[in-house]
Amino acid sequence: MASDTDTGSMSTDSFDSLAFDVFSRACPSRSTLEHVTGRWGGLTIGALYEESLRFNELRRRVDGVSEKMLSQTLHALERDGLVLREAQPVNPPRVDYELTPFGREVAEKLLGLIHCVEGRMDEVLASRARYDEARGGR
Amino acid sequence: MASDTDTGSMSTDSFDSLAFDVFSRACPSRSTLEHVTGRWGGLTIGALYEESLRFNELRRRVDGVSEKMLSQTLHALERDGLVLREAQPVNPPRVDYELTPFGREVAEKLLGLIHCVEGRMDEVLASRARYDEARGGR
Repeated sequence: MASDTDTGSMSTDSFDSLAFDVFSRACPSRSTLEHVTGRWGGLTIGALYEESLRFNELRRRVDGVSEKMLSQTLHALERDGLVLREAQPVNPPRVDYELTPFGREVAEKLLGLIHCVEGRMDEVLASRARYDEARGGR
Repeated sequence: MASDTDTGSMSTDSFDSLAFDVFSRACPSRSTLEHVTGRWGGLTIGALYEESLRFNELRRRVDGVSEKMLSQTLHALERDGLVLREAQPVNPPRVDYELTPFGREVAEKLLGLIHCVEGRMDEVLASRARYDEARGGR
Protein backbone atom coordinates (compact mmCIF):
# COMPACT_ATOMS: atom_id res chain seq x y z
CA MET A 1 0.00 0.00 0.00
CA ALA A 2 2.84 2.36 -0.80
CA SER A 3 0.38 4.83 -2.29
CA ASP A 4 -1.17 5.23 1.14
CA THR A 5 1.99 6.08 2.99
CA ASP A 6 1.63 9.75 2.13
CA THR A 7 -1.91 10.14 3.37
CA GLY A 8 -2.23 7.38 5.89
CA SER A 9 -5.78 6.93 4.68
CA MET A 10 -6.87 3.32 4.46
CA SER A 11 -9.98 2.14 2.67
CA THR A 12 -9.65 -1.51 3.63
CA ASP A 13 -9.84 -3.44 6.85
CA SER A 14 -7.37 -6.02 5.62
CA PHE A 15 -3.91 -5.98 7.19
CA ASP A 16 -2.42 -8.15 4.51
CA SER A 17 -2.25 -5.40 1.91
CA LEU A 18 -0.12 -3.21 4.14
CA ALA A 19 3.63 -2.82 3.90
CA PHE A 20 3.72 -2.60 7.71
CA ASP A 21 1.87 -4.99 10.00
CA VAL A 22 1.41 -4.43 13.73
CA PHE A 23 0.62 -8.13 14.11
CA SER A 24 4.24 -8.97 13.35
CA ARG A 25 6.38 -8.57 16.45
CA ALA A 26 9.32 -7.38 14.34
CA CYS A 27 7.39 -4.60 12.60
CA PRO A 28 8.35 -1.08 13.76
CA SER A 29 4.70 -0.06 13.45
CA ARG A 30 3.99 -2.03 16.62
CA SER A 31 6.19 0.23 18.74
CA THR A 32 4.61 3.34 17.22
CA LEU A 33 1.14 1.97 17.94
CA GLU A 34 2.30 1.33 21.51
CA HIS A 35 3.58 4.89 21.84
CA VAL A 36 0.22 6.15 20.61
CA THR A 37 -1.97 3.82 22.67
CA GLY A 38 0.25 3.38 25.70
CA ARG A 39 -1.14 4.35 29.08
CA TRP A 40 0.18 7.91 28.84
CA GLY A 41 0.75 8.35 25.10
CA GLY A 42 -2.92 8.28 24.23
CA LEU A 43 -3.91 10.75 26.94
CA THR A 44 -1.04 13.06 26.01
CA ILE A 45 -2.07 13.08 22.35
CA GLY A 46 -5.70 13.62 23.32
CA ALA A 47 -4.77 16.55 25.52
CA LEU A 48 -2.60 18.18 22.86
CA TYR A 49 -5.38 17.82 20.29
CA GLU A 50 -7.35 20.46 22.17
CA GLU A 51 -4.48 22.96 22.44
CA SER A 52 -0.71 23.17 22.53
CA LEU A 53 0.44 22.91 26.13
CA ARG A 54 3.51 23.42 28.27
CA PHE A 55 4.99 20.50 30.19
CA ASN A 56 3.37 21.39 33.51
CA GLU A 57 0.03 22.11 31.85
CA LEU A 58 0.18 18.64 30.33
CA ARG A 59 1.02 17.13 33.69
CA ARG A 60 -2.11 18.66 35.22
CA ARG A 61 -4.30 17.62 32.27
CA VAL A 62 -3.10 14.01 32.20
CA ASP A 63 -4.16 13.21 35.73
CA GLY A 64 -1.79 10.81 37.47
CA VAL A 65 1.21 10.94 35.13
CA SER A 66 4.62 11.39 36.77
CA GLU A 67 7.14 13.95 35.54
CA LYS A 68 9.45 11.14 34.43
CA MET A 69 6.74 9.22 32.55
CA LEU A 70 5.42 12.34 30.81
CA SER A 71 8.96 13.23 29.76
CA GLN A 72 9.58 9.74 28.35
CA THR A 73 6.19 9.79 26.63
CA LEU A 74 6.85 13.16 24.97
CA HIS A 75 10.30 12.06 23.75
CA ALA A 76 8.84 8.91 22.15
CA LEU A 77 6.02 10.87 20.48
CA GLU A 78 8.46 13.54 19.27
CA ARG A 79 10.80 10.89 17.87
CA ASP A 80 7.95 9.25 15.96
CA GLY A 81 6.98 12.62 14.45
CA LEU A 82 3.67 12.95 16.31
CA VAL A 83 4.57 15.81 18.65
CA LEU A 84 6.51 19.00 18.00
CA ARG A 85 8.61 20.47 20.81
CA GLU A 86 8.95 24.24 20.51
CA ALA A 87 11.29 26.19 22.77
CA GLN A 88 9.88 29.73 22.97
CA PRO A 89 12.46 32.57 22.90
CA VAL A 90 11.23 34.05 26.15
CA ASN A 91 12.56 34.63 29.62
CA PRO A 92 12.02 32.55 31.68
CA PRO A 93 12.52 29.83 29.03
CA ARG A 94 9.33 28.13 27.98
CA VAL A 95 8.66 25.00 25.91
CA ASP A 96 5.39 24.33 24.14
CA TYR A 97 4.30 20.91 22.89
CA GLU A 98 1.93 20.60 19.95
CA LEU A 99 0.77 17.88 17.58
CA THR A 100 2.18 17.60 14.07
CA PRO A 101 -0.32 17.09 11.20
CA PHE A 102 0.32 13.35 11.51
CA GLY A 103 -0.21 13.66 15.27
CA ARG A 104 -3.54 15.39 14.71
CA GLU A 105 -4.62 12.65 12.32
CA VAL A 106 -3.74 10.01 14.91
CA ALA A 107 -5.46 12.06 17.62
CA GLU A 108 -8.73 12.13 15.66
CA LYS A 109 -8.71 8.33 15.34
CA LEU A 110 -7.83 8.02 19.01
CA LEU A 111 -10.56 10.43 20.13
CA GLY A 112 -13.09 8.43 18.15
CA LEU A 113 -12.03 5.37 20.12
CA ILE A 114 -11.99 7.22 23.44
CA HIS A 115 -15.47 8.67 22.88
CA CYS A 116 -16.75 5.25 21.87
CA VAL A 117 -15.46 3.73 25.12
CA GLU A 118 -16.56 6.63 27.34
CA GLY A 119 -20.00 6.58 25.75
CA ARG A 120 -20.46 2.88 26.54
CA MET A 121 -19.16 2.79 30.10
CA ASP A 122 -22.62 2.17 31.57
CA GLU A 123 -22.69 -1.09 29.60
CA VAL A 124 -19.11 -1.89 30.58
CA LEU A 125 -19.82 -1.48 34.29
CA ALA A 126 -22.94 -3.65 33.99
CA SER A 127 -20.93 -6.29 32.14
CA ARG A 128 -18.22 -6.24 34.83
CA ALA A 129 -20.86 -6.70 37.55
CA ARG A 130 -22.39 -9.68 35.72
CA TYR A 131 -18.96 -11.21 35.10
CA ASP A 132 -17.86 -10.84 38.71
CA GLU A 133 -21.16 -12.12 40.09
CA ALA A 134 -20.96 -15.22 37.88
CA ARG A 135 -17.53 -15.86 39.44
CA GLY A 136 -18.60 -15.32 43.02
CA GLY A 137 -17.56 -11.68 43.19
CA ARG A 138 -14.12 -10.09 43.06
CA MET B 1 -23.84 13.41 27.52
CA ALA B 2 -26.12 10.86 29.16
CA SER B 3 -28.09 10.58 25.95
CA ASP B 4 -24.99 9.23 24.26
CA THR B 5 -24.24 6.46 26.72
CA ASP B 6 -26.62 4.12 24.92
CA THR B 7 -25.13 4.53 21.48
CA GLY B 8 -21.57 5.48 22.26
CA SER B 9 -21.76 7.84 19.32
CA MET B 10 -20.08 11.17 19.97
CA SER B 11 -20.43 14.18 17.75
CA THR B 12 -18.06 16.39 19.72
CA ASP B 13 -14.36 16.33 20.42
CA SER B 14 -14.84 17.83 23.85
CA PHE B 15 -14.25 15.55 26.80
CA ASP B 16 -15.94 17.88 29.25
CA SER B 17 -19.45 16.97 28.14
CA LEU B 18 -18.96 13.29 28.91
CA ALA B 19 -20.20 11.49 32.00
CA PHE B 20 -16.98 9.44 31.94
CA ASP B 21 -13.55 10.95 31.44
CA VAL B 22 -10.41 8.95 30.70
CA PHE B 23 -8.36 11.96 31.75
CA SER B 24 -9.44 11.44 35.34
CA ARG B 25 -7.33 8.76 36.99
CA ALA B 26 -10.32 7.59 39.04
CA CYS B 27 -12.63 7.09 36.05
CA PRO B 28 -13.31 3.41 35.22
CA SER B 29 -13.23 4.32 31.53
CA ARG B 30 -9.45 4.63 31.80
CA SER B 31 -9.02 0.96 32.64
CA THR B 32 -11.33 -0.06 29.78
CA LEU B 33 -9.36 2.12 27.37
CA GLU B 34 -6.21 0.43 28.67
CA HIS B 35 -7.70 -3.03 28.07
CA VAL B 36 -8.59 -1.98 24.53
CA THR B 37 -5.32 -0.24 23.71
CA GLY B 38 -2.96 -2.29 25.82
CA ARG B 39 -0.10 -4.04 24.11
CA TRP B 40 -2.10 -7.24 23.58
CA GLY B 41 -5.69 -6.04 23.93
CA GLY B 42 -5.63 -4.01 20.74
CA LEU B 43 -4.08 -6.78 18.66
CA THR B 44 -6.50 -9.34 20.11
CA ILE B 45 -9.49 -7.16 19.23
CA GLY B 46 -8.08 -6.50 15.76
CA ALA B 47 -7.60 -10.23 15.14
CA LEU B 48 -11.11 -11.11 16.33
CA TYR B 49 -12.60 -8.44 14.07
CA GLU B 50 -11.61 -10.54 11.07
CA GLU B 51 -13.07 -13.80 12.42
CA SER B 52 -13.92 -15.61 15.63
CA LEU B 53 -10.89 -17.62 16.73
CA ARG B 54 -9.89 -20.33 19.16
CA PHE B 55 -7.28 -19.62 21.81
CA ASN B 56 -4.38 -21.20 19.93
CA GLU B 57 -5.41 -19.56 16.66
CA LEU B 58 -5.32 -16.21 18.47
CA ARG B 59 -1.90 -16.99 19.89
CA ARG B 60 -0.53 -17.58 16.40
CA ARG B 61 -2.19 -14.46 14.99
CA VAL B 62 -0.99 -12.15 17.76
CA ASP B 63 2.68 -12.76 17.17
CA GLY B 64 4.72 -12.76 20.38
CA VAL B 65 1.94 -13.00 22.98
CA SER B 66 2.44 -15.57 25.75
CA GLU B 67 -0.27 -18.02 26.77
CA LYS B 68 -0.56 -16.29 30.14
CA MET B 69 -0.80 -12.79 28.70
CA LEU B 70 -3.37 -13.80 26.08
CA SER B 71 -5.45 -15.50 28.78
CA GLN B 72 -5.34 -12.38 30.99
CA THR B 73 -6.14 -10.17 28.00
CA LEU B 74 -9.17 -12.25 27.01
CA HIS B 75 -10.50 -12.29 30.58
CA ALA B 76 -10.27 -8.49 30.80
CA LEU B 77 -11.96 -8.01 27.41
CA GLU B 78 -14.70 -10.53 28.30
CA ARG B 79 -15.30 -8.82 31.64
CA ASP B 80 -15.67 -5.42 29.94
CA GLY B 81 -18.21 -6.89 27.50
CA LEU B 82 -16.00 -6.63 24.40
CA VAL B 83 -15.35 -10.32 23.81
CA LEU B 84 -17.69 -13.30 24.01
CA ARG B 85 -16.30 -16.66 25.12
CA GLU B 86 -18.22 -19.58 23.65
CA ALA B 87 -17.56 -23.16 24.76
CA GLN B 88 -18.57 -25.38 21.84
CA PRO B 89 -20.37 -28.65 22.77
CA VAL B 90 -17.87 -30.83 20.93
CA ASN B 91 -15.33 -33.46 21.79
CA PRO B 92 -12.50 -32.59 22.29
CA PRO B 93 -13.82 -29.45 24.05
CA ARG B 94 -13.38 -26.28 22.04
CA VAL B 95 -13.74 -22.60 22.96
CA ASP B 96 -14.31 -19.85 20.43
CA TYR B 97 -13.73 -16.17 21.10
CA GLU B 98 -15.66 -13.52 19.19
CA LEU B 99 -16.34 -9.81 19.48
CA THR B 100 -19.62 -8.51 20.90
CA PRO B 101 -21.40 -5.71 18.97
CA PHE B 102 -19.67 -3.24 21.32
CA GLY B 103 -16.39 -5.05 20.67
CA ARG B 104 -16.89 -4.69 16.92
CA GLU B 105 -17.59 -0.98 17.32
CA VAL B 106 -14.38 -0.55 19.31
CA ALA B 107 -12.49 -2.70 16.78
CA GLU B 108 -13.54 -0.44 13.91
CA LYS B 109 -12.21 2.64 15.72
CA LEU B 110 -9.04 0.78 16.61
CA LEU B 111 -8.49 -0.48 13.04
CA GLY B 112 -8.83 3.09 11.79
CA LEU B 113 -6.04 4.06 14.17
CA ILE B 114 -3.90 1.03 13.26
CA HIS B 115 -4.26 1.66 9.53
CA CYS B 116 -3.42 5.33 10.03
CA VAL B 117 -0.20 4.39 11.85
CA GLU B 118 0.76 1.58 9.47
CA GLY B 119 0.15 3.83 6.49
CA ARG B 120 2.49 6.51 7.84
CA MET B 121 5.38 4.33 8.98
CA ASP B 122 7.69 5.55 6.21
CA GLU B 123 7.37 9.04 7.72
CA VAL B 124 7.78 7.69 11.24
CA LEU B 125 11.02 5.90 10.38
CA ALA B 126 12.35 9.03 8.67
CA SER B 127 11.41 11.10 11.71
CA ARG B 128 13.16 8.64 14.05
CA ALA B 129 16.32 8.80 11.92
CA ARG B 130 16.31 12.63 12.02
CA TYR B 131 15.66 12.64 15.76
CA ASP B 132 18.45 10.16 16.51
CA GLU B 133 20.91 11.90 14.19
CA ALA B 134 20.24 15.26 15.87
CA ARG B 135 21.14 13.56 19.17
CA GLY B 136 24.29 11.90 17.95
CA GLY B 137 22.67 8.57 17.09
CA ARG B 138 21.15 5.92 19.30
